[in-house]
Amino acid sequence: MDSLGFEVLRKEGHARRGRIHLTHGVVETPTFMPVGTNANVKLVTPHVLKENNVQIILSNAFHLYLKPGLDVIRQFNGLHEFMRWDRPILTDSGGFQVFSLKRGQKITDDGVWIMSPIDGSKHFITPELSMEIQATLGSDIVMAFDYCADPKDGYEESKKSVKLTTKWAKRSLEHLRDISNQAIFGIIQGAIYEDLREMSLNEIAQMEFNGFAMGGLSVGEPRKETIKMVEFLGPKMPEDKPRYFMGGGSPDLLVDLVANGVDMFDSVFPTRVARHGLAVTWNGKFNIRSARYKYDKTPIDENCNCYTCQNFSRGYIRHLFDRQEVLGQILLTIHDIHFLMEFGEKLRESLENSTFEMFRGGIKKVYEKNFDC
Amino acid sequence: MDSLGFEVLRKEGHARRGRIHLTHGVVETPTFMPVGTNANVKLVTPHVLKENNVQIILSNAFHLYLKPGLDVIRQFNGLHEFMRWDRPILTDSGGFQVFSLKRGQKITDDGVWIMSPIDGSKHFITPELSMEIQATLGSDIVMAFDYCADPKDGYEESKKSVKLTTKWAKRSLEHLRDISNQAIFGIIQGAIYEDLREMSLNEIAQMEFNGFAMGGLSVGEPRKETIKMVEFLGPKMPEDKPRYFMGGGSPDLLVDLVANGVDMFDSVFPTRVARHGLAVTWNGKFNIRSARYKYDKTPIDENCNCYTCQNFSRGYIRHLFDRQEVLGQILLTIHDIHFLMEFGEKLRESLENSTFEMFRGGIKKVYEKNFDC
Repeated sequence: MDSLGFEVLRKEGHARRGRIHLTHGVVETPTFMPVGTNANVKLVTPHVLKENNVQIILSNAFHLYLKPGLDVIRQFNGLHEFMRWDRPILTDSGGFQVFSLKRGQKITDDGVWIMSPIDGSKHFITPELSMEIQATLGSDIVMAFDYCADPKDGYEESKKSVKLTTKWAKRSLEHLRDISNQAIFGIIQGAIYEDLREMSLNEIAQMEFNGFAMGGLSVGEPRKETIKMVEFLGPKMPEDKPRYFMGGGSPDLLVDLVANGVDMFDSVFPTRVARHGLAVTWNGKFNIRSARYKYDKTPIDENCNCYTCQNFSRGYIRHLFDRQEVLGQILLTIHDIHFLMEFGEKLRESLENSTFEMFRGGIKKVYEKNFDC
Repeated sequence: MDSLGFEVLRKEGHARRGRIHLTHGVVETPTFMPVGTNANVKLVTPHVLKENNVQIILSNAFHLYLKPGLDVIRQFNGLHEFMRWDRPILTDSGGFQVFSLKRGQKITDDGVWIMSPIDGSKHFITPELSMEIQATLGSDIVMAFDYCADPKDGYEESKKSVKLTTKWAKRSLEHLRDISNQAIFGIIQGAIYEDLREMSLNEIAQMEFNGFAMGGLSVGEPRKETIKMVEFLGPKMPEDKPRYFMGGGSPDLLVDLVANGVDMFDSVFPTRVARHGLAVTWNGKFNIRSARYKYDKTPIDENCNCYTCQNFSRGYIRHLFDRQEVLGQILLTIHDIHFLMEFGEKLRESLENSTFEMFRGGIKKVYEKNFDC
């Protein structure tokens, strides 16, 4: 299918250095995707994202369906023109909102009744509706509509989620092909149960998807369980298609994902922690709000080329946070996004130079304490 | 005094086209000064201010004295380096905070007990302390410490404010000259009483200030009273020194100020109204939050060259406000600052071409309804 081309350029163990060709441009992998839920990455313009070499962002079908609504998106000929971002976009299907917005929810074989977090109105989301939404948004990569069970609900519910996800994957794929030639990824469920993951993989991988995702991980389970499942599942996923881990942003998690063959990941991590004052650097993380930075004239990271580090001191940014001036959050968001993009570049370089395992070791050492993001 | 040079380049009636030479650069007048209370203009970087041709900003001695405190400012060798703004800064003296922060306040002949709005701590601000603060900040223009009475408190309190303001002006000037060669402006008080204003003018204007300001206006009195007082006072102020109206941002007010010989004004106007969704344009103002803009693909102003208008639609910005995404406030702040700067340019052009009265008439027609900002 010409809506997505994928090449694996080089391998080191299971880790892959690849390239995805999409409608709105080329994405070098492994790649981190910042999240822009409401048609914007919080606090920064598309201009700032581009300046910091963001290749692809993630946005949310369900949220954009509620607001501004499909009539508005249609008027703008899709999400790209609406938010003025001309590089690739991946949209999630609403499946994760079925997991995260439990109030007033009812799951049937046909779809899910889900309550709007904005006004409490009820909406019945089916795989077909999710495809209609994502076709209207015009994203480069559409996600199949899945059912992500809560790991706390146990084995039987996870088994149900695998079965429903398979049914809905088929309906998603069929319906999207009727209305659009966008690329679409299938999602593998099964929580932390190897047999369920294997079942899901076998069922999903045989369908004509352009890529495959691991869903239902990084949703509250211990980090060890996440890694165990990625080790089990990652290398089994189709070699010739991009592999996407849904939700992962902390550098120490990302190197483990890549080591197990993952090509893409997304998270609110850099933008959310920045709003809470956390600076992420090659030397680890620190909270800029600490009194120890009050008189500090140095930038967040002296070797960083981002706008924030080229211009502002820790002492100044700390002052802005202290006075609850949003400019502090803006400056830190710029730095943290820049860091994660530079992290991606160095990671890809290490794969090109066959030094990935060394790179991974270095990151793990610096980020010993997990973020759980 | 070489800390400030002032030339009147051209006149039309009382209106003046001038130029102020300051330590950190040249300011073309009449000029609008955006407000950066806590060492930042809310939501925008110094880079954005410069892109939009901001010449000079205002900051606040009292707020910066409380936070980050003079020890921090000293560590950074002043406010310019701290906030990374290398163009001129005017600092107010804390006098206006004596007006606006009444709780726990006590005024003596020597100074004012004033309560911190941050933590309730009490501070005794004297003219000498205000000068110490502003010398530490290193602003291009220091304001004398004044007492701005509430017009509601009546004639006697206003008379007291005039007398105290004169005493404190003398002490401000003497103390600043002992410690710094910064430019300093005297402030004329007297509320809405012509005899008090005249008394204050006579006392303040005979001191060796580098410029003169009208204080205690635009503080809640009807717009008519403001204008009446400016008409009375403006043309009487020294011809060879800059004249500064403290607090004025709405275009229809600004043209009336300029018509009466005012050269400088400041206000939170463009930044505050932007945060509430108000777009200011050559065709008037409108609230972007209105449902009527939901499907609107046009920019705020099709003829505007600002980053926001060059890139984003009303429909998109409305969506961001609707979803309480701060990026909406950021984009509108950029536009509104740009507009006020362009307004200043066109205003100066009209003075150069002797078409100011026509310009003024046009603005008054568009901005019939007052803003009270």
